[in-house]
Amino acid sequence: MAYLNENYLKLQAGYLFPEIARRVKEFCEAHPEAAKRLIRCGIGDVTEPLPQAAVEAMKAAVDELAVRETFRGYGPEQGYEFIRRTIAQHDYRDRGIEVEDDEIFLSDGSKSDCGFILDVLGERNRIAITDPVYPVYVDTNVMAGHTGPVDRSGRYEGLIYLPCRAENQFVPVPPNEHADIVYLCFPNNPTGAVASRAQIEGWVSYAREHQAILLYDAAYEGYISDPKVPRSIFEIPGALEHAVEFRSFSKTGGFTGVRCGFTVMSKKLLARTNDGGEVPLHRLWNRRWSTKANGVSYPVQRGAEALYRPEGKKQVRALVEHYLGNARILSEAASHAGLQVYGGKNAPYIWVRTPPGLTSWEMFDRMLRELNVVITPGSGFGAEGEGYFRISAFNSRANAEEVGRRLEATAFS
Amino acid sequence: MAYLNENYLKLQAGYLFPEIARRVKEFCEAHPEAAKRLIRCGIGDVTEPLPQAAVEAMKAAVDELAVRETFRGYGPEQGYEFIRRTIAQHDYRDRGIEVEDDEIFLSDGSKSDCGFILDVLGERNRIAITDPVYPVYVDTNVMAGHTGPVDRSGRYEGLIYLPCRAENQFVPVPPNEHADIVYLCFPNNPTGAVASRAQIEGWVSYAREHQAILLYDAAYEGYISDPKVPRSIFEIPGALEHAVEFRSFSKTGGFTGVRCGFTVMSKKLLARTNDGGEVPLHRLWNRRWSTKANGVSYPVQRGAEALYRPEGKKQVRALVEHYLGNARILSEAASHAGLQVYGGKNAPYIWVRTPPGLTSWEMFDRMLRELNVVITPGSGFGAEGEGYFRISAFNSRANAEEVGRRLEATAFS
Repeated sequence: MAYLNENYLKLQAGYLFPEIARRVKEFCEAHPEAAKRLIRCGIGDVTEPLPQAAVEAMKAAVDELAVRETFRGYGPEQGYEFIRRTIAQHDYRDRGIEVEDDEIFLSDGSKSDCGFILDVLGERNRIAITDPVYPVYVDTNVMAGHTGPVDRSGRYEGLIYLPCRAENQFVPVPPNEHADIVYLCFPNNPTGAVASRAQIEGWVSYAREHQAILLYDAAYEGYISDPKVPRSIFEIPGALEHAVEFRSFSKTGGFTGVRCGFTVMSKKLLARTNDGGEVPLHRLWNRRWSTKANGVSYPVQRGAEALYRPEGKKQVRALVEHYLGNARILSEAASHAGLQVYGGKNAPYIWVRTPPGLTSWEMFDRMLRELNVVITPGSGFGAEGEGYFRISAFNSRANAEEVGRRLEATAFS
Repeated sequence: MAYLNENYLKLQAGYLFPEIARRVKEFCEAHPEAAKRLIRCGIGDVTEPLPQAAVEAMKAAVDELAVRETFRGYGPEQGYEFIRRTIAQHDYRDRGIEVEDDEIFLSDGSKSDCGFILDVLGERNRIAITDPVYPVYVDTNVMAGHTGPVDRSGRYEGLIYLPCRAENQFVPVPPNEHADIVYLCFPNNPTGAVASRAQIEGWVSYAREHQAILLYDAAYEGYISDPKVPRSIFEIPGALEHAVEFRSFSKTGGFTGVRCGFTVMSKKLLARTNDGGEVPLHRLWNRRWSTKANGVSYPVQRGAEALYRPEGKKQVRALVEHYLGNARILSEAASHAGLQVYGGKNAPYIWVRTPPGLTSWEMFDRMLRELNVVITPGSGFGAEGEGYFRISAFNSRANAEEVGRRLEATAFS
């Protein structure tokens, strides 16, 4: 009988969001009246309609495919030149960062790319992740065989965990030990924290010293409103040689259902062979795309391109402002309710301390039962997330205001 | 410095199609007049416009996303229930094959899935592939570390090669040795051969005896016109327990730029752990999708669904008939030109013997230089492809007829 990949059997049973979905379903079936009042602030999924610029561009692209003369079949696996150039120009070169068009790799989202990147990395790397963390970084390493078994706190043997706590403003300092690969995510999911220029410089220095690669997830970059906070790790001099950046149109253009993101990998980024040779990782990553993909749907690529046009940019800005407005309402309400609140200023996530004595999942159940509001339990993001929960600001204004009212009307301690 | 995946360094430099593109570009730059006459019958890419049913469904879906009330964000990673049910019903249950909705996994194409499937398989499997073969099967195994180095004929150490020759009608019989995983593709790319019911039964028996998994690529299933030829491996009793089937809308609905396909994995298919345990591979595959994907673009899913409606089916049928008509024209012309021709009856590919004394790449260069026609050299698909070339029938009728005239006007030997 064919062998399976046993690393999968090490994974903890419930991927966080399916487990939330299960509990919500169970509650709604048991309490149909309360179910009608349910407001979801759990999964970080956008709610507002697609920007009109993207709508029009996608429909025009579909029309192109309906006519022989403008029909397009296979495109370049890494994305059409028009979108790679647009991204490199607007997101990087216009900001003084020298990224070439063919250092942009278009994908169906940063979640996929955060997993796929392991395809081109070796087996012997020491991997560091933050705690709490977006579960995909951990689970894809487990699947790839980079860890031992899980312990009772949910930590996998072999990974370096970097605690993110209120004491360090949820931004870890580089560890004393050696790591080859470090996952960083700013603005952070789940804590909503951002890293200052000095903090990111500290990480780039670490990467230089240890010849490590920083996997920098900037999916929430669009939510940075403080002009002093770097929007790309590549704003730090020398970072092109030490980091890969992941971006997404999910939370800017509302593309969670449309699916598009990209990865930036500079040709200056080197990785080593076992015998000490050095090879640009770009060469492997490019080959990966040629062999294992056929590129993003053409109409989607045109939709993404439209987000960079003047009207598209304005519509994206309005969407981001909308969600940041929700974040403000929710943060203030949670504060008024006597809860300790973090994040939510340069990010669509609010990270909240549970009331004394309540675990994350107990708070999840209480919010569901008493407020009929779905949040995400912090412990689902790692051991250090215990004692916290995440409120997502992705919602209508009316829902955000209603959740705010319910929070303020509750005596939490 | 971080380690890279050294298996990538074993890959031969030129993935076939980029190498063809390079030679064509070089020729066109050197011969701008001839370049104007160039007709591409190389890469298997569709040329005719998207079916109107898909066009309308995709645009309607984009319009849904433009309105708050009908907006959709994240969908199920494995595909919406509406499309999984439609596929399971039309392609399987209506034909008497008991496939459940959640055994259908929607993807952005069968190329991706043929690579991704290795994620859930173990390291110790003995892998068998046909020769010639679609290069993706081989290259993804090389990348995953399942092979040793390549030899001068292009064969990788550690793989079992199953020769497909005129003597066996390009359908290999099961080998005498043991394999855990066998890649099969019918209608075949590149040879255009189909496997009879008895031949597929032979493979299912082999899989049962060896407890092997057959990875059955049926991307060209829509081109089967002979009613005696099975369209799915699951038409063979018991095959659900021994095979995974890959399908695509690329060559039926003209979706090479739109991107959609699917994989069928039955819950009855088991794989083993090192200590002899047995686990349904479906569990791992489902988890893979949850963790490493966010599903196919929503408008694309609606476009695929529309291909199953009465008008969509009619439009798909017309497209397939168009390309099969081209295949007939090209087959006959190549025959008249004195060439030995295979395939092209239940497949969009014609597999042709090179004239005596010419290698595949020599024939490629000759076709390019003398006929200004791009074909695919057989040796690009494996050592056994040497001495053959592939003509793709994906073209306009006018181009197919013109290539036919050029073939007939040429003295090949």
